[in-house]
Amino acid sequence: MARPLTDIEAGKAHLLDLIEHMIRERGGAGVNLSELAAEAGMSPANIYRFFASKEALYEAVAERWFAPKIAIMEEVTADDGPIEKRLFDFFARRFVLMRDNYLAEPDLFKRYLELGDEHQETVRGYVDLGDHYLAILVAQAMEEGYFQGLTIDQAVSLINLMLLPFISPWQMIELMHSVTEEKLKVIILTMLKGLEAANAAEEERPRLALVG
Amino acid sequence: MARPLTDIEAGKAHLLDLIEHMIRERGGAGVNLSELAAEAGMSPANIYRFFASKEALYEAVAERWFAPKIAIMEEVTADDGPIEKRLFDFFARRFVLMRDNYLAEPDLFKRYLELGDEHQETVRGYVDLGDHYLAILVAQAMEEGYFQGLTIDQAVSLINLMLLPFISPWQMIELMHSVTEEKLKVIILTMLKGLEAANAAEEERPRLALVG
Repeated sequence: MARPLTDIEAGKAHLLDLIEHMIRERGGAGVNLSELAAEAGMSPANIYRFFASKEALYEAVAERWFAPKIAIMEEVTADDGPIEKRLFDFFARRFVLMRDNYLAEPDLFKRYLELGDEHQETVRGYVDLGDHYLAILVAQAMEEGYFQGLTIDQAVSLINLMLLPFISPWQMIELMHSVTEEKLKVIILTMLKGLEAANAAEEERPRLALVG
Repeated sequence: MARPLTDIEAGKAHLLDLIEHMIRERGGAGVNLSELAAEAGMSPANIYRFFASKEALYEAVAERWFAPKIAIMEEVTADDGPIEKRLFDFFARRFVLMRDNYLAEPDLFKRYLELGDEHQETVRGYVDLGDHYLAILVAQAMEEGYFQGLTIDQAVSLINLMLLPFISPWQMIELMHSVTEEKLKVIILTMLKGLEAANAAEEERPRLALVG
């Protein structure tokens, strides 16, 4: 307990490297603290200095997985450039990151996703965080006249639905033959030009009142 | 062989009812012709009069599953009403049908989907048929000035991506808390108003050139 924090952090990082190695070799389902201790040549008691529980270990794995995505979202929302470009970057940069990670090591990527499916509560927090950052961008876009007549929550939900194949890693894999940055760009432009409350669309173009 | 076709058809329909019962009771994975024969109280030789092979049986199950969806697509594409309404109906009527089928008997619905996952070649033909019908509507919409600068194939692909949670039954189930007809309506209106080639959007609204 007298060790400086940096040693604990370095130890955790080393153990997370080992965990990734174990996930690569045999999937994440069975990984637990005693196996990790054995792999690290530590006593089971010693490993608790780094991770207080199996759950703490999984949370650390998730934290590492999501860290570069959160960095992108923080950077894009804090930026003061044009909202159109930032909305595109918000999705495109994470999509490209996910796609490149997948293409570099497809099996490892899928094993992480399977691990996430088994720990949905942990993942849920990060999904909510993504919605939080998106809401910030949507609010800024609304100030510039986009998404008329929608609430922020409605716009966030609609945007997430329309971009599902670029947001959901499983869907991205399933549709890998079809998802491209160019298509993402067209869909973002479509949203910027067209996404608004149904009645707003109908007032402006009466023929659209025929829909629904 | 001298029996009229209608008897064969009636026999097939009866056997497909039985198959549905078997799928409901224990899933579709293990269902084969000899089990079906036993369930129907027929000799194995007799059942071949109705289905020449296990594959023919699965194709008949798929045909029955997709028949109401094809009927909707045929009706909507043949209709001569306004293209805006038909494009909405094309997706909304099938979405409502899928959702109601799922809500009526969620386990049976999922078992059919699992069966489909095991017979992707058969399902693929129906997916392609759906794209064929959508291409007809897209071509008609283009004649009225929608989807500028895109090819028919590009528009079909983009529309399918943007509507994935309303088209893919697995995604619909996953997002059941979020997918509604009202949101589908807003997304269709968004596409009608905004979906066009990236350069077309940028010419009209220069700030959109900032995207990507």
